Amino acid sequence: MKTNDLRLKLGRLKRAPENFVPAELASEVSANGITEARRSFLRNSFLTAMAAGASTATAAALAQGAKGDPNILEKQVWQTTLGQPVAAKPYGMPSKYEANLQRRESPGLTRVSAASVAFAPLQGLFGIITPNGLHFERHHQGWYDIDPAKHRLMINGLVKQELVFTMEDLMRLPSVSRIHFIECGANTGMEWGNVAVPTVQYTHGMLSCCEFTGVPLSILLDMAGADTKKGKYILAEGGDGSGMTRTISMEMALDDVLVVWGMNGEMLRPENGYPLRLVVPGVQGVSSVKWLRRIEVGDMPYASKDEAVHYMDLMPDGMHRQYTSIQECKSVITTPSGGQQLLETGFYNISGMAWSGRGKIKRVDVSVDGGRNWREARMETPVLTKAITRFNIDWVWDGKPAILQSRATDDTGHIQPSYRMLREVRGTRSIYHNNAIQSWKVDTNGEVSNVQVG
Amino acid sequence: MKTNDLRLKLGRLKRAPENFVPAELASEVSANGITEARRSFLRNSFLTAMAAGASTATAAALAQGAKGDPNILEKQVWQTTLGQPVAAKPYGMPSKYEANLQRRESPGLTRVSAASVAFAPLQGLFGIITPNGLHFERHHQGWYDIDPAKHRLMINGLVKQELVFTMEDLMRLPSVSRIHFIECGANTGMEWGNVAVPTVQYTHGMLSCCEFTGVPLSILLDMAGADTKKGKYILAEGGDGSGMTRTISMEMALDDVLVVWGMNGEMLRPENGYPLRLVVPGVQGVSSVKWLRRIEVGDMPYASKDEAVHYMDLMPDGMHRQYTSIQECKSVITTPSGGQQLLETGFYNISGMAWSGRGKIKRVDVSVDGGRNWREARMETPVLTKAITRFNIDWVWDGKPAILQSRATDDTGHIQPSYRMLREVRGTRSIYHNNAIQSWKVDTNGEVSNVQVG
Repeated sequence: MKTNDLRLKLGRLKRAPENFVPAELASEVSANGITEARRSFLRNSFLTAMAAGASTATAAALAQGAKGDPNILEKQVWQTTLGQPVAAKPYGMPSKYEANLQRRESPGLTRVSAASVAFAPLQGLFGIITPNGLHFERHHQGWYDIDPAKHRLMINGLVKQELVFTMEDLMRLPSVSRIHFIECGANTGMEWGNVAVPTVQYTHGMLSCCEFTGVPLSILLDMAGADTKKGKYILAEGGDGSGMTRTISMEMALDDVLVVWGMNGEMLRPENGYPLRLVVPGVQGVSSVKWLRRIEVGDMPYASKDEAVHYMDLMPDGMHRQYTSIQECKSVITTPSGGQQLLETGFYNISGMAWSGRGKIKRVDVSVDGGRNWREARMETPVLTKAITRFNIDWVWDGKPAILQSRATDDTGHIQPSYRMLREVRGTRSIYHNNAIQSWKVDTNGEVSNVQVG
Repeated sequence: MKTNDLRLKLGRLKRAPENFVPAELASEVSANGITEARRSFLRNSFLTAMAAGASTATAAALAQGAKGDPNILEKQVWQTTLGQPVAAKPYGMPSKYEANLQRRESPGLTRVSAASVAFAPLQGLFGIITPNGLHFERHHQGWYDIDPAKHRLMINGLVKQELVFTMEDLMRLPSVSRIHFIECGANTGMEWGNVAVPTVQYTHGMLSCCEFTGVPLSILLDMAGADTKKGKYILAEGGDGSGMTRTISMEMALDDVLVVWGMNGEMLRPENGYPLRLVVPGVQGVSSVKWLRRIEVGDMPYASKDEAVHYMDLMPDGMHRQYTSIQECKSVITTPSGGQQLLETGFYNISGMAWSGRGKIKRVDVSVDGGRNWREARMETPVLTKAITRFNIDWVWDGKPAILQSRATDDTGHIQPSYRMLREVRGTRSIYHNNAIQSWKVDTNGEVSNVQVG
């Protein structure tokens, strides 16, 4: 970070991550009654900033120090009175000022909300860990808060010995903890049709990253004496009403697949599979079967309904790609992103996420001119395999139109493709596995919108 | 993991992490009305396990497969009906079955709860990330949910230019994200007097580990043109009623100290300093000043009230060690731990946490015989500097009395000391900076209790 960059006038970003609501959601949000509060918070911040002279170059404003900024000298109530006691919230919650940063469904996406998606608010998240309260949701028959005392996991099929585990049985086995992303195969799916969904919450919000704790599936298969020669596949079955079933290759099952109960240090959340789920690192989320109840070892793919009808890629020649599963190398800029606005020219910190289902992110390049020129971004540590990597890069906006893009490269050498490159192979009729470069257009008035370039 | 270990009879652990309540807490917990629910959950698990034959060797029970386990075949309501919709909880919460896993105050520890501690339930946590809802609390004057629009950070003292930042100003600067532990200097303090606090929640629960996002303090000091030659120290001042102030060396301030707004991907929680706190990696928690409002650059230590009266180490010769701050290499076994009970002999997974304020954990050794013999534990990745490292190791309990201990070594070569070694130097009159080896005694009836050995 060159000091000089920071002597520059600093631009002001109307991040508005929490209060941006696409038209179709207005009703929903006014319904939850917090939009106005949030608006006034932003209005106040803006006015205070103006009062502090931030409408001129911020460097100049800062140069005034406390001048024009009485708040800093005047005591606030929280500095002069006794506050709340400890454990007032035995299980803590976010500040009331953050109440509008939440998971949101895109109405009309599916016929019922029990078989729908709740998108994570990526525009308001930092780092690589997704807080459990904001992990995205995708259900096929809704979620239940299942009684762990009644939950069982069965291992059957091509095994020497069928096994049935209680949660107690499983949680006493040797456990491991690993940080991995889970991305729905349909994430960014609407962009195939160039829908230009307005915000990153809706373009990329079926993505989260947590520290998972559980027992390697390989240990359970070993305990059951699974035939790993004849048994080339396993079937994972969920305990919810959708009876979700997915085929997973034995090679993968014996590699890094986990049977998980822990998520960011605590038990899974009900909507994320409590008390037990599968986590198949790097593979589309549907394979990380929630409310996991059964693992069957078999000698051929199962072609279940969710494999024979859904989660396939329709190619230009009319053929389907079946059993595609790996989430390829991908990245997205979350700040600035669609729905936000740059309130003035000057310095900005561009921040985003990169991930690959094949391994670690090796580098992330960022362009502000629609792909003509690229600069390498800073990657935050730790850089982990099949996990989100946070990147940041400095940028000075000169007030001219700009197109912001990020392009990730993983340690297998896979480079995130442009839409043109992806469509040459995949056509335009796919829903799943879109890992194309995302473009955010910055208009002369600073408004940021979703466009497709290259 | 040797398969043979798993062919062994598996021991059953009454983890009871959530429902264990020391006598003095009984009232508090019956007051929150969830103890009974939790008890019945555990009773049911136990009975079901019995029914499944788990009271005999579990391997044998497992060998029965579904036999004696009707639940696995009989459909549950959640498999036959439509569940809850997505975004039913726009900000998610834990399962109702986990409602009793919470932060707890130890009554009588301080005169008022606004100047007290809420301990994190380490016995129920997994991995290295502490979920934000369970991060420990230590306040000196209680907490407020401060309006971020009214919050300011001032940089003054030996600087070319005093600066005042709004939250907007700060959040547009180049940010970094890093995973670090925060441990109160008084953590495990009661053990100096051999109080033998009953559970790990109360012995070590003033410890948490999160991914923090913010701007390096060095950048702010650079913007203000701090005199880093004459200015050998900084003072960090909090915005709460306690006016908490801590002296930090300029060397440390320019190294890895962060001015933080993000915690595990979202904004800080009010009780953890929302909207802004300092994070001083590796140093006792009190220096990671919450509700941070001012940084002053000075030419000598400030000897503030919390440095001249509290947070000092009383040595055997009656002298005080002042400005001790680094949290030395330390570890603790969280499962099995005090208050839990091994219900039968057989296989157990011993799990715990290790951390060092000086760098990375290099290895963790575990003894089950009070320190006579040691085996090296498995460390989960990632192993990060000044962060918690999760360790696991296999153990077969033969029903005889055992004493479980963990001993961490960091990459500076510092080896966690025994109580005898620590007291030879520090005596017994300290409160702070106890990093001695923790011993859990397993009785013939399987009950686990806190003892001091060696």
